[in-house]
Amino acid sequence: MRAYDIIKKKRDGAELSKEELSFLITEYLSGKIPDYQMSAFLMAVYFSGMTDAETIALTGLMLSSGSRLDFSDISAPKVDKHSTGGVGDKTSIILAPLMAAMNIKVPMIAGRGLGHTGGTIDKLESIPGFRTDLSIKEFKGNIKDIGFSIISQTDEIAPADKKLYSLRDVTATVESIPLIAASIMSKKLAEGIGGLVLDVKVGKGAFMKNINDARKLARTMVNIGNSMGVKTIAIITDMNQPLGQTVGNGLEIKECISALRGKMPDDLKEVVLTLGAWMAYVADCVTEEAGIAKLPEHVLIKYKSELMDLIEKGDAFKKFVEFVDAQHGNPEAAFKPDIIPSASKVKEIRIPAKGYIREMDAEKAGMAAMLLGAGRQHKEDRVDHSAGIVLNKKTGDYITPDEPVAIFHYNDETKIKEAEEVFLSGIRTGEIPPDRKQIIIDV
Amino acid sequence: MRAYDIIKKKRDGAELSKEELSFLITEYLSGKIPDYQMSAFLMAVYFSGMTDAETIALTGLMLSSGSRLDFSDISAPKVDKHSTGGVGDKTSIILAPLMAAMNIKVPMIAGRGLGHTGGTIDKLESIPGFRTDLSIKEFKGNIKDIGFSIISQTDEIAPADKKLYSLRDVTATVESIPLIAASIMSKKLAEGIGGLVLDVKVGKGAFMKNINDARKLARTMVNIGNSMGVKTIAIITDMNQPLGQTVGNGLEIKECISALRGKMPDDLKEVVLTLGAWMAYVADCVTEEAGIAKLPEHVLIKYKSELMDLIEKGDAFKKFVEFVDAQHGNPEAAFKPDIIPSASKVKEIRIPAKGYIREMDAEKAGMAAMLLGAGRQHKEDRVDHSAGIVLNKKTGDYITPDEPVAIFHYNDETKIKEAEEVFLSGIRTGEIPPDRKQIIIDV
Repeated sequence: MRAYDIIKKKRDGAELSKEELSFLITEYLSGKIPDYQMSAFLMAVYFSGMTDAETIALTGLMLSSGSRLDFSDISAPKVDKHSTGGVGDKTSIILAPLMAAMNIKVPMIAGRGLGHTGGTIDKLESIPGFRTDLSIKEFKGNIKDIGFSIISQTDEIAPADKKLYSLRDVTATVESIPLIAASIMSKKLAEGIGGLVLDVKVGKGAFMKNINDARKLARTMVNIGNSMGVKTIAIITDMNQPLGQTVGNGLEIKECISALRGKMPDDLKEVVLTLGAWMAYVADCVTEEAGIAKLPEHVLIKYKSELMDLIEKGDAFKKFVEFVDAQHGNPEAAFKPDIIPSASKVKEIRIPAKGYIREMDAEKAGMAAMLLGAGRQHKEDRVDHSAGIVLNKKTGDYITPDEPVAIFHYNDETKIKEAEEVFLSGIRTGEIPPDRKQIIIDV
Repeated sequence: MRAYDIIKKKRDGAELSKEELSFLITEYLSGKIPDYQMSAFLMAVYFSGMTDAETIALTGLMLSSGSRLDFSDISAPKVDKHSTGGVGDKTSIILAPLMAAMNIKVPMIAGRGLGHTGGTIDKLESIPGFRTDLSIKEFKGNIKDIGFSIISQTDEIAPADKKLYSLRDVTATVESIPLIAASIMSKKLAEGIGGLVLDVKVGKGAFMKNINDARKLARTMVNIGNSMGVKTIAIITDMNQPLGQTVGNGLEIKECISALRGKMPDDLKEVVLTLGAWMAYVADCVTEEAGIAKLPEHVLIKYKSELMDLIEKGDAFKKFVEFVDAQHGNPEAAFKPDIIPSASKVKEIRIPAKGYIREMDAEKAGMAAMLLGAGRQHKEDRVDHSAGIVLNKKTGDYITPDEPVAIFHYNDETKIKEAEEVFLSGIRTGEIPPDRKQIIIDV
């Protein structure tokens, strides 16, 4: 076999065999196939696509390039959720303790933010002392004892994906649905879970800008998961405006703490409870070794109300406190959120006109937060955990010049003007309110 | 500017500016843009194509990455021809002395063979002592004194093309019309010529398998040449069966010597005289600073008959002898072709059935010759100058099992069986003769 022939075959639109993909990945990892052949291959995949069989084979190869966690000694169901990335998306940090309170184990390996999107790991690191670089042993221990743990990507998990992703990142080959699906799923399947709920974001602040691509990505990932023995479902959610009322790491942790104490804005609540209900249902399917069906509304409502009970009784909050403590963070932060660093400066952002907010572009809000210091332009950039945006108004709200639409939190004011321009350029107002859009688009 | 953005822009089908292409080529040559970004870019070009403006800009950049020969001290018109590569295509070696006999200067920089296609340089090197690595000074001297010279690619000519071609060769990005056009034209324009006649081959033994691609390549190259001040025309010729009666370096040189002495098979004669007539016309256009028009048949016939006269009078042959001598070859070879090495073994190849040859696949004949030792599978392979195939019969001829269709010449018999199988698998016979096909398809 020759790399050249495999590149040419993919370029010409043919389906590669498992053996050909295996040769490609194995020889690439061992350094026998150089980056320049792999990047040509990746660009050919960008244009020619991959069949389901190819995507599943590629996922399997990336998965088996590293180790796969083994939780067979824990009898409770292991279920994770994964979001394809958005702005203000802090659902993981609320859901993991909530599911743990329901005796569902959540072994979550999460990522950092890049560009306009935030990352769960950056958010957690705004808690003083918090560590996400636990050993696999500590990770497992926390899952056993508390019910969940959230750590950052380790070198043992899917090293082939890590090497490939670095190359895709600099060769404009990230935006390929089969490559995105294989990358996400190879890491999630390594977690040793029995079930997985995917939150595929669609809209201005998401990687998938249109519903067709979102559905295609969702279907591809569900197919990979189920064909590899993990009960997987995907929920498509709206990411046209930021989720919740905060964008930025420390600010979002404070919002999570409020949420775990029962105070959630409607959009965040809807996404958290829907994802949570499906995680609970998937966990039941794992336990009962049953197939996954589309749930009737009344069953979903039952699960949601159980989850609300766990929040209101304080069980989810309690799990969160234990979690912060176990990962070397200061658990006092959960009771006194002021312990989480605040920015030295704030600025009220106003709109000169009055009217209904018809649009609040999530990508632009994310870019503005990044410019304030909350995000990374490049992978190696550092983030300012205290910087970000508090949204006083959201789409559908009525606004006048008298009240700020948002408050910027920042320490470095060099890009404040640019951030304000970018943020405001994403807001459109009008005399009539916009039609109410469903945040849960499809399951 | 960032390489990433340029790759993405091309990937998304947009037109690149001259500045963007210049940045890409300059930084790639200086090593600041790595191979893996360039190969992703090349694959994006394979899929997204290039506009005429981009192709012209790229050609200009590759041309100016090296030196351009200057023949302004020679007043006679300088015209070259270039073939896109075929099997048994020895026209350059006949045409260059023929045009020189007409006082048209031909400064030809030629290539080596690869795969099923032969190369002018390999053919010439079968003449004992012949050198193609002349200095530019010697090259120029020969053009002044004899009227033509043929040398191999030097490092001074279009080094950007050389570096890019090596990368394309291993990343399955060779078969892109704008990249092929820019590569050929950057080298030809460096020859300091005023006119150029392109022989774009189409058919089984050519790079362009169908007439649409051949026309597109022809148009692209003509456009580049004319927009850069070189009067360029393209002729599309058939390459479904090998050209002439020999395939293989020494055998082809012997056929060239016969041709220069007036003995040419019909198909070879038709291509040589048509290309030669157009070279003569283009030379007149260069001298008269006139535009190129489509020639009426009677004018072409006049040029062709002038060329035949020069062959019959022995003027072209005389130029060839001078050329061999000037390039350190043994000029006796022109008079006693036995001086050119012969293979130690021959084998007659027969077809078990009788009938008309309806097809003789040029690619398969070229592959068979390569297996006999006449060609290279890989760039670093050595060729056996004496190996090859003499075709006793060609498409349209009647054949019986009593007479050989071809004679294989070889020294190494390890691949003789494979060569015979490949060669015969390309021959189809039938009870009725095929329709006579025009070898000159379009101008």
